[in-house]
Amino acid sequence: MARTDLLLYADTARSADMLYFGRFNAPDPFIAFRLGSKKIAVLNALEFGRARKASGFDVVLPLEPWLQKARRRHPGAKVGAAEVIALLARHYRRSSFTIADDFPAGLCDRLRALGLKLTPVASLFPEREIKTPAEAAALREGNRCSALGLAAAEALLRKSKIKAGQLVLDGRPLTSERLRTAIETACLEAGALSIDTIAAGGDQACDPHERGHGPLRANELIIVDIFPRVTATGYHGDMTRTFLKGRASEAQRNLVAAVRTAQLAALDAVRAGVNGRHVHRQCLDVFERHGYETKHTSKGSVGFFHGTGHGLGLEVHEAPRLSAVDCILKKGAVVTVEPGLYYPGLGGCRIEDVVQVTDRKPRMLSSFHYEWELR
Amino acid sequence: MARTDLLLYADTARSADMLYFGRFNAPDPFIAFRLGSKKIAVLNALEFGRARKASGFDVVLPLEPWLQKARRRHPGAKVGAAEVIALLARHYRRSSFTIADDFPAGLCDRLRALGLKLTPVASLFPEREIKTPAEAAALREGNRCSALGLAAAEALLRKSKIKAGQLVLDGRPLTSERLRTAIETACLEAGALSIDTIAAGGDQACDPHERGHGPLRANELIIVDIFPRVTATGYHGDMTRTFLKGRASEAQRNLVAAVRTAQLAALDAVRAGVNGRHVHRQCLDVFERHGYETKHTSKGSVGFFHGTGHGLGLEVHEAPRLSAVDCILKKGAVVTVEPGLYYPGLGGCRIEDVVQVTDRKPRMLSSFHYEWELR
Repeated sequence: MARTDLLLYADTARSADMLYFGRFNAPDPFIAFRLGSKKIAVLNALEFGRARKASGFDVVLPLEPWLQKARRRHPGAKVGAAEVIALLARHYRRSSFTIADDFPAGLCDRLRALGLKLTPVASLFPEREIKTPAEAAALREGNRCSALGLAAAEALLRKSKIKAGQLVLDGRPLTSERLRTAIETACLEAGALSIDTIAAGGDQACDPHERGHGPLRANELIIVDIFPRVTATGYHGDMTRTFLKGRASEAQRNLVAAVRTAQLAALDAVRAGVNGRHVHRQCLDVFERHGYETKHTSKGSVGFFHGTGHGLGLEVHEAPRLSAVDCILKKGAVVTVEPGLYYPGLGGCRIEDVVQVTDRKPRMLSSFHYEWELR
Repeated sequence: MARTDLLLYADTARSADMLYFGRFNAPDPFIAFRLGSKKIAVLNALEFGRARKASGFDVVLPLEPWLQKARRRHPGAKVGAAEVIALLARHYRRSSFTIADDFPAGLCDRLRALGLKLTPVASLFPEREIKTPAEAAALREGNRCSALGLAAAEALLRKSKIKAGQLVLDGRPLTSERLRTAIETACLEAGALSIDTIAAGGDQACDPHERGHGPLRANELIIVDIFPRVTATGYHGDMTRTFLKGRASEAQRNLVAAVRTAQLAALDAVRAGVNGRHVHRQCLDVFERHGYETKHTSKGSVGFFHGTGHGLGLEVHEAPRLSAVDCILKKGAVVTVEPGLYYPGLGGCRIEDVVQVTDRKPRMLSSFHYEWELR
């Protein structure tokens, strides 16, 4: 079976495809081709040596001589990636390439003007969805870092004292910021970078992407969501727990119990061949049965208004999805399972774990206890 | 003067333009328009509340009802960002937009098929190049974090002992990894994330983007390059120093002196209206005068084979450039000045500071001493 020829132009900080393709980190965009099964990269002098020594590319070409050839071919014109790509396409006797949907539109226009046929596709490497045992291990390591972050947050909450309704530690208010620093330091020491870590309490936690700021209060639900990237591999962890320091109300206990019940129902439904929509449906059903309504108003949404989960890998959010959209789960895919409920006044709760899809029960790739009421 | 209407589709982790435009962090791509001077964003329920409360957008529209309208308009079809954008364009009676060169090509094709005229430009917000006093302060803060990282690295090197040519601290080899963890922890505690931090010694440092690994040795040049992102603002620092623990050879001393001389010559040439190429030329001249040759071989390059500097802001590398390419420096632009020399066997040296362009001497936005031989 002939494989399509691929063209990539990206840096590896922005493009997980490029990192997946070349297993090589570069901060600036560069050109790469897959011709048949051969992987070719074109790198400047800054990256060339390193790519030769340690990358998954079969051929590493130096950019500078190709830029010079392009300048000779287009005298007087401003020459860049487009002209080099066109020259290399001629060299390799190719004129049409598949590109990713997120290939840069400006470069795409220039290449088409130079005569190349480019076809964008939603997924350049559909095989990224199926995680190899090595990738599953890398994701497990990411979640080990998430769990270390959760443990660091829990330790601070346990050590804190309640004074006039506020959490106080070492004589200072315990804030979202302090929790986050402790979490991110724990991840860093374990070899992972935790970015945009969420440690949000009370009504702040009802905005699921609000990171949290200011003093944390007693008797309020505190969502801690940690999705670090392991520096050595590029793979992520993604785990959430909801804590409460002090004494929970009956309503808070019911809320947390419903979310955990929904998570267990969803976990039970994850299996190869199942529709992600069906998994999501399990959470909706649990919340409906327990009387938790979802409403969208002009001021925002309350209830359960995000997907049940998403693929996890070199990106925090990738294929497949567990949501209202059709999406058949493949064996080997790795997904988060993270139902949540959010009601300003009462608070927010989300519980998130990561599993790999199998023919039977999913394989847990994350591990941390579910105790949440900390006295 | 009528301003062009702009269309953006990006997340703010990947797109500095989107962050600059909306002053709002969102991990998943979303739609934004600038119509005349009005800034409009379309956000899903997960982000909607937060964007309403704290963003630079004049109008925040909820995505879900517009998706539903798009579904009614295209029954049976898979509906996404393209259909919503086309609907909104109709709603606002617009049919042509300027997009950034890095707008996703797949979406661009779909929008053109839906009848929109899209024109990619290299720079969506040319004003990003000129830093306001608030932005200059944010960059100074980024460099304060870089300097804290440099100080952390220096402290470990000073504390280490030399045993059989290797650096040892607390009974264990002092490695690039340990230096990096100390640097990144220092940045984190100061409120910044340092990613891809370089701490590379000996021949490793001759690959300018090699991050460094394994035990560090005495009497070898160690390049430490730290470009953290301040979490609160998104702006970066970017500073490099080259250290040596032990005793430098005459050749190493000459190398470091030449790099510092080149940096001072370049700093002296930075001024509003000057060509970046002229600044770069100063470094080339110094190295030529001191007899440091630059050579490109099939195994890689030696000498001075990168640009003298680059713009710094919401991205680590942005306009303008100080390199072999024509590029007039504008008043208010912020650039790094970072000549380097790399010779396997002898080692690598790079010294980097950050300045803001003025009509006279550039304004230093970074500060750290230049002592490098640590006994």
